[in-house]
Amino acid sequence: MKVCRRAHFNSAHRLFRPDWSDEKNNAIFGKCNNPNFHGHNYQLEVWIEGEIDPETGFVIDLKILKDIIKDEIIERFDHRNLNIDCPEFKALNPTAENIAVVSYNLLRSKIDKKYDISLKLWETENNIVEYSGK
Amino acid sequence: MKVCRRAHFNSAHRLFRPDWSDEKNNAIFGKCNNPNFHGHNYQLEVWIEGEIDPETGFVIDLKILKDIIKDEIIERFDHRNLNIDCPEFKALNPTAENIAVVSYNLLRSKIDKKYDISLKLWETENNIVEYSGK
Amino acid sequence: MKVCRRAHFNSAHRLFRPDWSDEKNNAIFGKCNNPNFHGHNYQLEVWIEGEIDPETGFVIDLKILKDIIKDEIIERFDHRNLNIDCPEFKALNPTAENIAVVSYNLLRSKIDKKYDISLKLWETENNIVEYSGK
Amino acid sequence: MKVCRRAHFNSAHRLFRPDWSDEKNNAIFGKCNNPNFHGHNYQLEVWIEGEIDPETGFVIDLKILKDIIKDEIIERFDHRNLNIDCPEFKALNPTAENIAVVSYNLLRSKIDKKYDISLKLWETENNIVEYSGK
Amino acid sequence: MKVCRRAHFNSAHRLFRPDWSDEKNNAIFGKCNNPNFHGHNYQLEVWIEGEIDPETGFVIDLKILKDIIKDEIIERFDHRNLNIDCPEFKALNPTAENIAVVSYNLLRSKIDKKYDISLKLWETENNIVEYSGK
Amino acid sequence: MKVCRRAHFNSAHRLFRPDWSDEKNNAIFGKCNNPNFHGHNYQLEVWIEGEIDPETGFVIDLKILKDIIKDEIIERFDHRNLNIDCPEFKALNPTAENIAVVSYNLLRSKIDKKYDISLKLWETENNIVEYSGK
Repeated sequence: MKVCRRAHFNSAHRLFRPDWSDEKNNAIFGKCNNPNFHGHNYQLEVWIEGEIDPETGFVIDLKILKDIIKDEIIERFDHRNLNIDCPEFKALNPTAENIAVVSYNLLRSKIDKKYDISLKLWETENNIVEYSGK
Repeated sequence: MKVCRRAHFNSAHRLFRPDWSDEKNNAIFGKCNNPNFHGHNYQLEVWIEGEIDPETGFVIDLKILKDIIKDEIIERFDHRNLNIDCPEFKALNPTAENIAVVSYNLLRSKIDKKYDISLKLWETENNIVEYSGK
Repeated sequence: MKVCRRAHFNSAHRLFRPDWSDEKNNAIFGKCNNPNFHGHNYQLEVWIEGEIDPETGFVIDLKILKDIIKDEIIERFDHRNLNIDCPEFKALNPTAENIAVVSYNLLRSKIDKKYDISLKLWETENNIVEYSGK
Repeated sequence: MKVCRRAHFNSAHRLFRPDWSDEKNNAIFGKCNNPNFHGHNYQLEVWIEGEIDPETGFVIDLKILKDIIKDEIIERFDHRNLNIDCPEFKALNPTAENIAVVSYNLLRSKIDKKYDISLKLWETENNIVEYSGK
Repeated sequence: MKVCRRAHFNSAHRLFRPDWSDEKNNAIFGKCNNPNFHGHNYQLEVWIEGEIDPETGFVIDLKILKDIIKDEIIERFDHRNLNIDCPEFKALNPTAENIAVVSYNLLRSKIDKKYDISLKLWETENNIVEYSGK
Repeated sequence: MKVCRRAHFNSAHRLFRPDWSDEKNNAIFGKCNNPNFHGHNYQLEVWIEGEIDPETGFVIDLKILKDIIKDEIIERFDHRNLNIDCPEFKALNPTAENIAVVSYNLLRSKIDKKYDISLKLWETENNIVEYSGK
């Protein structure tokens, strides 16, 4: 049984590598390499897999999951510049893939190991990533 | 190959255990424990996994699946109070998880065993469960 | 210029008139007359029409509008039984139309008269009402 | 008869007034005043009102409207920092309201005066503005 | 007070004028002029404006409106080729604008004149028309 | 890690087998067997599974994936009659299942074998298929 809580955060970012030339950054990252940043409304689904607790009928209390997502992800990334404000991306390009890995690791450390976790992250309506820690 | 038919039902429910005190029910289920009930527009996706029939090009005829969902799920739960009107939840807390298990079992008994079934159930835009009988 | 803030509430309700016979209630309200209630995820858009404040660039601060909607609508209707828990519907059938009128009046009394208000309320994906106080 | 073409752009922005103190900017704009910017996936609907051309059955050719929106709005704002990269917002706070006014004026100058124009702009799923030039 | 019922139909169509040359049809209608047709999932919102009936709390019974839409629109256009199967478009180009006018007239003749009607029709996620009979 | 790019195409089709009688085609395919065709707005999600490239932070450059989808799927099926215009369906019933298989094979031949591919295809809001080449 899997359960999911959905959340959102609105952030600025820029895709680039400081060790690459401008030419190479533009060739690979195109308009996502705008040095003044652009931004997205990120939509996140956090899926938790586990057994139903026969006492409560819940896999996990989604109110508790909501609070963990708020503390670990929303407070950290919402209305932030991922490149400048977030130490997680000081040395890591904030692609959707890397945001998913960082978010997974943040949640993994706060959620009981008896649960499996997977994340689905929309950068736009058309660009989506999914990650389950493997 | 998996195929899916989507359906909806609108129901009232209350989360609580009759064997718990009011204090414990409120502590665990919060506002979902309102003794006068609240309700949801449930959205259900029924996924069927199987081989494509080379005759028809269908895994399963979705018109037939639609009718099974209507007979087994919609007629039973739509415009009902899950706690009062539905014997399935007389002794089972109608959490989204338990609604998914009950719905799975109802559909499993009507759908050929050669197919695997999984369900995705939205209680709200933000709360989702997924169940595949395991 | 119009601006909008979206909100949600999940409620149980029943459509019926206590002064009508069961037969008439069933003839007019059908399955919505289930005496044990059913429920919906209501989605509400609150639209405010006014001038842009040249100081802020806002018609109205949507954070303030969000709080007014929370205090006046969400706290009152969310996870409630509209017929039983909400005095507004003690003598008023909680159709989507009447929920919109009641919500409009509640908001109208809290929002500066220089603004026009209109509401759009989804009872389901397919049933919607719109009201602007006239 | 009104017709609409939908479009998207992804931008960074910051809400603040350079002539205000940090304290006042924070009091009014809150986390939207992050000096390092945040961002959004803006969704824009451009509505054109006019008569149906009996020759074509179109009010306006939506392929042409799509190109105008691309040239005037998407090329200008997509993957840009509205405050830094866009001269339109050098002296104008890039609230959703002001983005709508600027976009309206840009489109108004390129679209035949026989048509009325109105814009609907989503900054997030929950925050929307609508503007028709009045 | 306005109320709305949403509906869907899936149709094939082709945009062209038989009195124009192939060159002109291609120049104006582009790939929509494919002589073998293409198709769409049309989404229709039918909005009815009127007074709330104080007896029922309804502007109009949406179950009745649903049936009228089914009889007049869905039965006529769903799983049809608009150009070939539908006499309404034998001499009228089936643009979204013209489908809206035809649908409006079909509904207008079946709905009490005390109500105003307006239609919103999605041809795709990005192309929408709105018509209120004027 | 999986990444996804979403795309759309609008096509006409008809479900039938030329080697079956009209009676049998109607019994099995119902209104989908309209000899004059009907149509859909197909929505496609192409999911690519692979390792994150530590150089770029991408599993695959979604701009490149977008172009492959455009060349292989959109150019082939969009604004086409699947039965008449597309040789892929000359001898294959264009059910959603078969469209997914054909699309999978087209993409599989253009995408590096180090990636796994799976497709999710919406024929309507309610009818969906998923295929991963097995």
